[in-house]
Amino acid sequence: MALLEKIDSSADIKKLSDEELEPLCGEIRQFLIEKVSRTGGHLASNLGAVELTVALHRVYDTSRDRVLFDVGHQSYTHKIITGRRDRFDSLRQYGGLSGFPKPYESVDDPFVAGHASDSVSVALGMAKARSLAGEDYKVAAVIGDGALTGGLAYEGLAAAAASGEPMVIILNDNEMSIDPNVGGTARLLQKLRVRPGYISFKRWYRELLADLPGVYHFTHTVKEWLKGQLLQENMFTAMGFEYMGPVNGHDPVALETVIRWAQEMEKPVIVHVLTRKGKGCPYAEAHPELYHGVGPFDPVTGEIKPVGESFSDVFGQTLCEFARQDKRITAFTAAMAGGTGLDGFAKEFPQRFIDAGIAEGHAAAMAAGMAKQGALPVFAVYSSFLQRSFDMLIHDVSLQGLHVVFCVDRAGIVGSDGETHHGIFDVSYFYTVPGMTVYCPASFQELRDMMALALFHTQGPVAVRYPRGGEGAYRDSCVLPELKLTEGGDVTVVCYGTMVNTVLEAAAELEQAGIKAEVIKLGRIQPNGFEQCLASLQKTGKLIAAEEVCAAGCVGSRVLAEAAGAGIPVNGACLLDLDGGIVPHGDRDSLMRDFGIDAAAIVRAAKRLCRREK
Amino acid sequence: MALLEKIDSSADIKKLSDEELEPLCGEIRQFLIEKVSRTGGHLASNLGAVELTVALHRVYDTSRDRVLFDVGHQSYTHKIITGRRDRFDSLRQYGGLSGFPKPYESVDDPFVAGHASDSVSVALGMAKARSLAGEDYKVAAVIGDGALTGGLAYEGLAAAAASGEPMVIILNDNEMSIDPNVGGTARLLQKLRVRPGYISFKRWYRELLADLPGVYHFTHTVKEWLKGQLLQENMFTAMGFEYMGPVNGHDPVALETVIRWAQEMEKPVIVHVLTRKGKGCPYAEAHPELYHGVGPFDPVTGEIKPVGESFSDVFGQTLCEFARQDKRITAFTAAMAGGTGLDGFAKEFPQRFIDAGIAEGHAAAMAAGMAKQGALPVFAVYSSFLQRSFDMLIHDVSLQGLHVVFCVDRAGIVGSDGETHHGIFDVSYFYTVPGMTVYCPASFQELRDMMALALFHTQGPVAVRYPRGGEGAYRDSCVLPELKLTEGGDVTVVCYGTMVNTVLEAAAELEQAGIKAEVIKLGRIQPNGFEQCLASLQKTGKLIAAEEVCAAGCVGSRVLAEAAGAGIPVNGACLLDLDGGIVPHGDRDSLMRDFGIDAAAIVRAAKRLCRREK
Repeated sequence: MALLEKIDSSADIKKLSDEELEPLCGEIRQFLIEKVSRTGGHLASNLGAVELTVALHRVYDTSRDRVLFDVGHQSYTHKIITGRRDRFDSLRQYGGLSGFPKPYESVDDPFVAGHASDSVSVALGMAKARSLAGEDYKVAAVIGDGALTGGLAYEGLAAAAASGEPMVIILNDNEMSIDPNVGGTARLLQKLRVRPGYISFKRWYRELLADLPGVYHFTHTVKEWLKGQLLQENMFTAMGFEYMGPVNGHDPVALETVIRWAQEMEKPVIVHVLTRKGKGCPYAEAHPELYHGVGPFDPVTGEIKPVGESFSDVFGQTLCEFARQDKRITAFTAAMAGGTGLDGFAKEFPQRFIDAGIAEGHAAAMAAGMAKQGALPVFAVYSSFLQRSFDMLIHDVSLQGLHVVFCVDRAGIVGSDGETHHGIFDVSYFYTVPGMTVYCPASFQELRDMMALALFHTQGPVAVRYPRGGEGAYRDSCVLPELKLTEGGDVTVVCYGTMVNTVLEAAAELEQAGIKAEVIKLGRIQPNGFEQCLASLQKTGKLIAAEEVCAAGCVGSRVLAEAAGAGIPVNGACLLDLDGGIVPHGDRDSLMRDFGIDAAAIVRAAKRLCRREK
Repeated sequence: MALLEKIDSSADIKKLSDEELEPLCGEIRQFLIEKVSRTGGHLASNLGAVELTVALHRVYDTSRDRVLFDVGHQSYTHKIITGRRDRFDSLRQYGGLSGFPKPYESVDDPFVAGHASDSVSVALGMAKARSLAGEDYKVAAVIGDGALTGGLAYEGLAAAAASGEPMVIILNDNEMSIDPNVGGTARLLQKLRVRPGYISFKRWYRELLADLPGVYHFTHTVKEWLKGQLLQENMFTAMGFEYMGPVNGHDPVALETVIRWAQEMEKPVIVHVLTRKGKGCPYAEAHPELYHGVGPFDPVTGEIKPVGESFSDVFGQTLCEFARQDKRITAFTAAMAGGTGLDGFAKEFPQRFIDAGIAEGHAAAMAAGMAKQGALPVFAVYSSFLQRSFDMLIHDVSLQGLHVVFCVDRAGIVGSDGETHHGIFDVSYFYTVPGMTVYCPASFQELRDMMALALFHTQGPVAVRYPRGGEGAYRDSCVLPELKLTEGGDVTVVCYGTMVNTVLEAAAELEQAGIKAEVIKLGRIQPNGFEQCLASLQKTGKLIAAEEVCAAGCVGSRVLAEAAGAGIPVNGACLLDLDGGIVPHGDRDSLMRDFGIDAAAIVRAAKRLCRREK
C-alpha cells in the first residue's frame, strides 16, 4: 500500500505520475477486497469503478467541484481517496462509515444518494445554481446503465441536454462489451479526432481498440440505441449532448484524458465508459450479482458466510406454489429479482415474470393494466423504493379499486444501508391510498397465510409488508386484524410484524415487575377499527405502541385518535417509533436501542405510565 | 348533424363510407365547439384529435378492444361516438358526463386517465394479460408529445418495445410540423412501401407530402430525436418498435389505413401522427393554450367569460416581487406555467424560470440540487401531480433538510376535473415527509405573507398549499400556527385555508341557535402542537374538524391523537372530510354538500354533538 498511504485527497491523486495510477488502482482493489470481506458491503460495483474514480479525482477537486455518484454504492474508492481510508473497518456499522455518499460525512460528498436515477437531475440543479450565481465550480454525475432504465434519468438527461449547462455525465456502463462486428467504433472515434488533444487521444484509441471484448450485452432498453449511436447518431447526441466514447473504463490515463476534454467543452457532455463489475477479483467478476451487496466472505476463495432463511425466501417459495395452481398470477420486480426472492419464480415461470428495470412507477401502472384485464399481478418491491410508485398507487391502482398485490420487502429498519433504504414510510403512505388493505406478518407462516389472504380473499389494492431477514421466536400464525396475545389490565401494548418478539420479551419482563401488559398484535394494519385495542384501552387507560416506522401517521396515533373519537379516556400514552424518520445505518439492535423502541424501552415506558398513575 | 345522429358506437362508424368521414368530422367539430362553449372543458386538444379518434373507431371495437387515451382530456370525440352524445350538456358537471375516461361510465372507457404518461405502461399490462390468457382483443394507446416528456412514458415505451407484445402506440404529435428541408420523409416512407397495402398507401403518401407545413416545432426533449429518425433510425426503432409515420392526423382515411397496418403487424408499433391543436376553429388554432382547458366562451368569436383573480395569480405576482429583490429565487413548473400563474415570472426572469415538462420527479430532484448549492428554488405544482414527486420529497429534499419551496396549487376540491385531479392527498403525504413544514393560507394576503415566511423564514422543505380559484369573505392575514377566530365554550371547530369561510358561516348560524363555537384556524398545518386546539378542547370537550382532504391522516385525527396523548377527555368528535378520498367531478358546492363538509353539515354536527351532551 505504498502509494495508497500517501492519498488523502483529490490533490494527492493529482501529484502522482501517469505510471503510478495503475499500481495505485491495484492497491485500492486489494484494500477493497480486504475490507469488504470483513464488513460486507457493495463489492462488485466498487471494483468496477476504481480507475474511473481515480480519473475523476485527477480532473476534479471534489471538495469544491460537485461529483455525484448515482445510487452511491460505488463510492468506496471515492471515500478511500478523500481521507476516509482509516474508517473502512467501521463500514456500514452503527456510528461508522456509511456505504453511501453523505454530506454530513465529508465535504467531498455533494449530496445524499441511495435511490437510483436522480443524479443527472441533481447535477443539473447544481450546475444551474452555479451558473446563476456566477461561480465556476464544475459538476459531474456518474450514472450506471442500470439506473438509466429509470424514467427519472431520462427526464434528467432530456433537461440537462436542453439546458446547455456545462456538466459531464459519465455513463458507467458495466454490463456492456462492444461487438467488433458492429464496426462503428472507428467512425465514432473519427468524430472525436477533431477535438482538442488529438495526439494523446490516439494512444488511448489504440488501446481501446485492442481492449474491446466480443459480446455486446446491455440493458435491453438502451441496447439498440447504443448500437445505433455507433453507426451515426445516438440518443444522447439527439438530445443535445456531446457524446464521447465508448472508453475503456479500466485505463485511468485514457479516462482522465477524455473526462478532461469533456470538462473543457463547457457544455453538457456524455462520457460513455465501459467497465466490468468485480474487475480484478475472479469470483466477483464471475458472479457480480452475488458480490453486489454481500455479507462477509473469504477474501481468497470468495466463499460467502451463509445466512438463514429470510422472509424474501418464504415469499418467493410461496408465490411459486400459488402460481402453480393459479395461472393468473404474474410477478413483477424492479431490478431486484434476487433481493426479493423471485429468482425461483423467474426460472419456473419466465413468461409470467416481469423485471421492469429500475422503474417502479411503470411496474405499478403496468400491473394495474393487467389487473384491470383479470390477471393477478404481484409486485415484489422494497418498501423504500415503492415510494417511487406513490402516484400510481393512487391514480392507476386505487381509484379503480384494482386488485394489485404489493409484496413489500425491507419494511422497517433495514440496517446497514441506512437513511435512504429503511422501509419506514410505507405504513404512513399506504394509509393515504384509498381502499388499500395492508397486512403485516410476524412469522414465516403468517407471511404464507397473509399472502393467500391478499391474493385470493382481498379486494382492491393490497400490500403484505415484511422485514429484511428472518423471523424471531414468534412462529404462530393468525391473519385476524387484531390478536390479543396476553391478558393484562395495566397497560395496552400494540404492535405488528416481527416487533411482536420485542414486545413479548418486554411483557415477560414487565410481568416479573408486577405489571400486566395486554399485548395486541395487529395482523391487518389497514383497514382496522381497532376494536380490541379500544376495548383493552377502556380497561387499562394506558397505551404503548411500538413500531418501526416514522411517527407521522403511525398506527399508535390512529389508535389514540379512535379512542378519543369514541370517548375512551386515555390516562397515558407512549408512542415508540422512529420519530421523524431519518434513521442512520447500523445494526437493527443498536438502532432500536437508540431510538428507544427495544424491549428495554417498552419496559421503561410501561413502568413510567404505571408509576404515573399510582 | 345528419351523419352524427346515426353514430352510437364503433360499429356505426364502421358502416360509413370513406367519403362520409370528413363530413362526419366536421359535424363532430361543430358539436364540440357548441357544447364546450357552454359547459367549458378541454377544447383545443379535442378538436385536434377528431379524425384520429374516428380512425381508431374504424379499426377497433372499443367495447372489446382496449384503446387508452393518455391523460384522457382528448377523449370527447370518443365519448360522442360511443353513445354519450346526448349527455354532453352535462359535461364536467356534478352527476354529469366526466371530461375524462371512466370505466364506470362506459365499457368503451378501458381505464381511468387523468395524470400524464401512464398509458403505455397500462396498455402493456393489458396486452400482456391478454396474451397470457390466450385472448385476442387488441390494445392501443394514444399519447401526446407533451406526455412523452414524462419519464414514466419512457419506462413504458422501453418495456413495451422489449416485450414484443402486439400493441399500437399512437404518438399524437400536436405541436409539430415537419420542415420539408429535413428531407427524410421520403426515405422513411420508402421503408414503409415494402409493407402490405402499398397501393392505397401511395395515395395517402401523396396527400401527406402535400400537407406538410413549414416549421418544425416540438418538445425540446425529443425534437432532435425525431429529426434523427427522419434521417435513419429513431428512438422508437432503436428501442425495438416498428415505426410508421409521420402521418397527417387530419386525414381520416390515411389514418385508418396506417393504424390498420400497424395493428396487423402483430408487434409493438408506433404510429406517429401529426395533428394541430384547435384544428378547424380559428381562435383555438391561434391560441391553443387559451382553449386547452377553458371555461364557457362565445362559440363564434371565442371570447372567454372573464374569471376573477385567483390564488394562482397572487402567487405569480408575489413571486415576481420577491424575485426582484432576491436573485437566488428560481421558479419551476411541470408544464403548467399558465395554470400555476408563472407566465409573468417566465417573461420577466427567463433565466430563472424552468419548465421541466411533465416531469415532477425531475423538477423536485433538480430543485433539491439547486437548494444544496444555495439557490432558492420554488416549485409551483398542482397538489395532485406532486404525488409523482413523493419519493424525491423524501429522498432528495427531506433527508438533507433542503430548503425547497413547494407552492402547491389546486389543493382541495378542484371541481370539474374530478377524481384524478382533486388535491386532497397532499396534507396526508406531506405529513410523512421528515422535517416538512406546511402552510395553508385562507386569503390572498395570507398567501403573500405565508410565501414570505416559507421563502425567507423557514428552514428545510416547505409547502404553501392553496386552492383553485379565489378567496372568500375572509380577507385577514395571520401566519401563526393557530388563530382563534371566535370564542365559545360549546364546541371546538378546527379548519384551515378557505374552509374558514364555511366554518365562520356555520359558527354564525350556530350562534343564532344558541351554540357557541370556538373556531380555530390553522395557518401552519405541520408542524403543529395544536396547543390552542387542545386548550379549547379542554374547555369544550367536543371537536369538529372540517377539511377538504381524505380522511386518512387528516388534521382532525391528529388533534384527536394529541388530545388522547395529553389525557384531555373528548366527549364527542366529528371529523368532516372527504372520506376515502375518491371524489367525483362537479362543482365545489355540490361536492361539499354531498360529502357533508359544507356549513349546513357543520351546523348539523355541532347540534348533534351538543345535543348528545344534554
